[in-house]
Amino acid sequence: MTYAYLNNIELDEALKQYMEIVRTSCIKPDTEEVPVGASSGRITSRAVIARISSPHYNACAMDGIALFAARTFGATDTTPVTLSEGEDFIRVDTGDPLPGGCDAVVMIEDVIDEGAGKVKLLSAAAPWQHVRQIGEDICAGEMILPSNTRIEPAAVGAMLAGGVLKVEVWKKPLVGLIPTGDEIVGPTGNPGHGEIIEFNSSIFSAMLAGWNAEAVVYPIVPDRFGMIVEALKKASEECDLVIVNAGSSAGREDLSLEAVRQAGRVFVHGIAIRPGKPAILGMVNGRPVIGVPGYPVSGIIVMERIVKPVIEYMAAGRFEERTAVKATLSRKLVSSLKYREFIRVRLGDVDGKLVATPLNRGAGVVTSFVKADGILDVPLDDEGYESGHEVSVQLLRSLDEIRHTLVVTGSHDPLIDVVSDLMRRTRPEKYVSSAHVGSMGGIMAVRRSETHAAGIHLLDEDTGEYNISYVKKYLAGEKIALLRCARRQQGFMTAPGNPLQIKSLADICRKGIRYVNRQKGSGTRILLDYLLRREGIPASGIYGYEREELTHMSVAALVASDSADMGMGILSAAKTYGLDFIPVCEEQYDFILREKHLELEIIRDFIDILKSAAFRDVLESMGGYALEDTGKIIVV
Amino acid sequence: MTYAYLNNIELDEALKQYMEIVRTSCIKPDTEEVPVGASSGRITSRAVIARISSPHYNACAMDGIALFAARTFGATDTTPVTLSEGEDFIRVDTGDPLPGGCDAVVMIEDVIDEGAGKVKLLSAAAPWQHVRQIGEDICAGEMILPSNTRIEPAAVGAMLAGGVLKVEVWKKPLVGLIPTGDEIVGPTGNPGHGEIIEFNSSIFSAMLAGWNAEAVVYPIVPDRFGMIVEALKKASEECDLVIVNAGSSAGREDLSLEAVRQAGRVFVHGIAIRPGKPAILGMVNGRPVIGVPGYPVSGIIVMERIVKPVIEYMAAGRFEERTAVKATLSRKLVSSLKYREFIRVRLGDVDGKLVATPLNRGAGVVTSFVKADGILDVPLDDEGYESGHEVSVQLLRSLDEIRHTLVVTGSHDPLIDVVSDLMRRTRPEKYVSSAHVGSMGGIMAVRRSETHAAGIHLLDEDTGEYNISYVKKYLAGEKIALLRCARRQQGFMTAPGNPLQIKSLADICRKGIRYVNRQKGSGTRILLDYLLRREGIPASGIYGYEREELTHMSVAALVASDSADMGMGILSAAKTYGLDFIPVCEEQYDFILREKHLELEIIRDFIDILKSAAFRDVLESMGGYALEDTGKIIVV
Repeated sequence: MTYAYLNNIELDEALKQYMEIVRTSCIKPDTEEVPVGASSGRITSRAVIARISSPHYNACAMDGIALFAARTFGATDTTPVTLSEGEDFIRVDTGDPLPGGCDAVVMIEDVIDEGAGKVKLLSAAAPWQHVRQIGEDICAGEMILPSNTRIEPAAVGAMLAGGVLKVEVWKKPLVGLIPTGDEIVGPTGNPGHGEIIEFNSSIFSAMLAGWNAEAVVYPIVPDRFGMIVEALKKASEECDLVIVNAGSSAGREDLSLEAVRQAGRVFVHGIAIRPGKPAILGMVNGRPVIGVPGYPVSGIIVMERIVKPVIEYMAAGRFEERTAVKATLSRKLVSSLKYREFIRVRLGDVDGKLVATPLNRGAGVVTSFVKADGILDVPLDDEGYESGHEVSVQLLRSLDEIRHTLVVTGSHDPLIDVVSDLMRRTRPEKYVSSAHVGSMGGIMAVRRSETHAAGIHLLDEDTGEYNISYVKKYLAGEKIALLRCARRQQGFMTAPGNPLQIKSLADICRKGIRYVNRQKGSGTRILLDYLLRREGIPASGIYGYEREELTHMSVAALVASDSADMGMGILSAAKTYGLDFIPVCEEQYDFILREKHLELEIIRDFIDILKSAAFRDVLESMGGYALEDTGKIIVV
Repeated sequence: MTYAYLNNIELDEALKQYMEIVRTSCIKPDTEEVPVGASSGRITSRAVIARISSPHYNACAMDGIALFAARTFGATDTTPVTLSEGEDFIRVDTGDPLPGGCDAVVMIEDVIDEGAGKVKLLSAAAPWQHVRQIGEDICAGEMILPSNTRIEPAAVGAMLAGGVLKVEVWKKPLVGLIPTGDEIVGPTGNPGHGEIIEFNSSIFSAMLAGWNAEAVVYPIVPDRFGMIVEALKKASEECDLVIVNAGSSAGREDLSLEAVRQAGRVFVHGIAIRPGKPAILGMVNGRPVIGVPGYPVSGIIVMERIVKPVIEYMAAGRFEERTAVKATLSRKLVSSLKYREFIRVRLGDVDGKLVATPLNRGAGVVTSFVKADGILDVPLDDEGYESGHEVSVQLLRSLDEIRHTLVVTGSHDPLIDVVSDLMRRTRPEKYVSSAHVGSMGGIMAVRRSETHAAGIHLLDEDTGEYNISYVKKYLAGEKIALLRCARRQQGFMTAPGNPLQIKSLADICRKGIRYVNRQKGSGTRILLDYLLRREGIPASGIYGYEREELTHMSVAALVASDSADMGMGILSAAKTYGLDFIPVCEEQYDFILREKHLELEIIRDFIDILKSAAFRDVLESMGGYALEDTGKIIVV
């Protein structure tokens, strides 16, 4: 195959071509001998043949006497046979080797002792009765395991039983990881301004360990062409496979591409998948070299889809395919015709219906992989799907786990994390999964049966009452229960010490004040808009009104980093960041759910946690919450 | 709970009572801090909170100029805004930190260079455009993982991105394994007469490693009460859980029981499961102590059913439940009403139908676990099932693997192992599973659609022809193909040098000759019976005629170990054991299968392997085979 610069080759085609090159042009995988006791999980590189039989001697299977069965033939009640110890029989215990000349054991219960070394038998013994014969389990010369077979714990025992002490297995491929980039630094709790923490190699190493491969992480290489070429050459001499992790900046990708080409050859560059497109498939020094994109989500997809099959070939292993399940898409999903897209989804089993909700598609958002329950694979020439469409999702967590997960979708409050942690602490088989879509988003999720519960805090401007009127309006005709949670303190967050002397809402349109807002539909946004209207302040006069964040914490983070001067949020978020706080009002944060769900075990657990002393204690330490009637159920 | 000697307590009840004791009376599990990079697969013991945000600074997402967006408000084609470098804007590259005082990036393509440090913009910039904002992925103070959560590779990345370098996890429970027994010895390729190789602790260690636990294997303790008590005390001081592996002899179990009682307490002894009944559940020094039966299969079941849940509690982990599938039972299965039985089964997907065939139930037969595809759990008060009954089987191998498995049931020949090995060598996703049930058993398996192919060698006494007449008789009306395999040499095997001077069939009834026979329905048995009739030799005159073995290899093993003097079998088995061989006849060994299965990919692979040079080479080196027309298909 000649080199072709293929900009958008299909994944399966790229892999097929590349695997052919790996098989024919790359150095063959190596084998090694390991002690059988340490071989569990390894893959045999040749058939394992038993050296001895198991049992390797005929063993007595009862306490009694061993004898030559023919000596007892004809024995009956009326014609007993009398035997002499030493001459006709030998006393044996279970597990003893069958003495020479014997071929049967008679249980001690059937032996009549006549004294003076004589015994009487009233029935004949069948040859080989109560004897565990040689080779009952394994015969010497028999194949215990064929080639290319994963060694399970029982096989370790079978090999040892067969007298096999060492086994030839495929060597674990050694994978060299080369992180590149001027701005990246090794893991640190205190990165400098402009420094990006390099965590991809830690993710990749952990993935490789699960695939029977070993990773060696090379020092970070700066963006210098010559240095990348040198690193590639060195790694390809020392490892069986090399991964160069291109940075995320625009020009970096070309640097890696040219470096692989300089050090060896490039076969494929650019694969029609998203995320993961800029992958590079090449060879240096007879070793496969794969350029994996720098954005963590892209990198994980390329590791799963391209590196894993190469490792499978090298390790002669087959690593479990993710189980696929059918799920209903909770919202419309648009995909590009030009790419096969791998979209992370959250799954919820709400009414026996598995619902898939697409997560943030940002390639840099590693937490979307932490939160994901599955991956939705949208083919190349598919434009996406409508809400309600049935899709196939490859599971990242077990279905059992997903079925034991409380799904909370709606307004964000850190107290949901507290519930999640307490659920894991007290009920090891149960989980909480939460998504932050604002109060109105939560109401819609309940309406579409995509969630068990939704956190809401929605002020009725007419009555000053919270939540109930919204439920009546947007969930009319449904049987909804409201689960009282907490009153919490809303206010404006400012930098510590409040350097700009922000005192009230009026300051929001003061010149030089950079505001950070919450997304439309969130209770906090609705509260702000209500306050603005009441005070007659136009949104257009607020610098940053369009800058929308999804959580109280991210608003606090931006204020804390001097990226904004003022933002609205709850006291606990302000306290986390040590910010100043100007109280605006106290509001009621509740959960809503379908009344019938009150009977679910997971909901009963949820209510128990809300009512628990542990929950109260943690919220008290966070500050800004008043727990009254917490866990009380109000049917709306 | 007071001690009760419970002879046959139900598994679930025993476990419930014991877990309650472990939770309330035993020492609590310990935690430790590990570097995040080494934490993959561990379980968090407390919530993990992000220390820094990710990104932790506002980063430019484009090459261009950074500026304060308000400075560009009002810019249009007709009213451009002119900006001065240093004063109004700063040139930036992707990944650069956003300079202080700036809140937006304009792409270089949209910047008109006026020279002398001046640029012109024709449209206004929106605040925060082309900026990757602080906390886009993770906000400092946010929970990354709750307590008691398994750390997946992506979570390693998320923690490092959140500035977390160490994570508190549950310590891997340290499990002390105490093998006991006078006759057991450590793994060896050359055990002495009466010595049993101790391989259980290797199986158990490998199982424990898969459950996030570490095993320490103590020296083998002989059957002395005081020494076992001492070993229990020592191990319970050094480990979190102790397993005492009772030997297999009758009295051993009581010794372990009394030793645990002497060193601590016994709560349960005897559980209504089979295999595994004599398990002991106790406590010494505040540590759980479990007595696991010595027979490997019993031991594995007790490890899975009792030790695993205790480890799950200690490690705060939940280890995957085996997937259960529905399968049709291929033969009647009798079970005891008094026990919950765990029966190993082989699964085959023959015509899209998953068929479960129970394997040898011997508790000592560790290879039955190596060959098993699943476990059939027969409840306490069930007497068993009829053939054809639909049962639920917990998978030991993946369904995908089972679906890619060639099932060969019938007469045994070592060449099937050769096919199995070549299949694994050349087709990494495919497997061969074989069962030795004799030629007639193979024909029945084809009739019941429980196998893809059956190996047979059946002599028609009338015609002297092999196999075809049997197919016509027993598979009348079915479309069957016969796949020619090999002619092979049958004969009598004797000890090396043939010390008893066995020359022909006539010697079989000579006094002092111990014969070892094959099971009814096997081709070799049918051949022997034919020869006996022809020569007029009565079976009653043969010592050992009733001693039935299932394979050529086990007959050879018994002759080789001087446990029998004469047995019938094929030359390759005799050669494996270096035995003398008296040829009797050449016979035709073929495979039969349903004609429609010829189209299956796995059958085409099978035929390709039979025809391959590699197959021919291996059989030539084994000896005793003539390959003519091998792989030829004859439609019967």
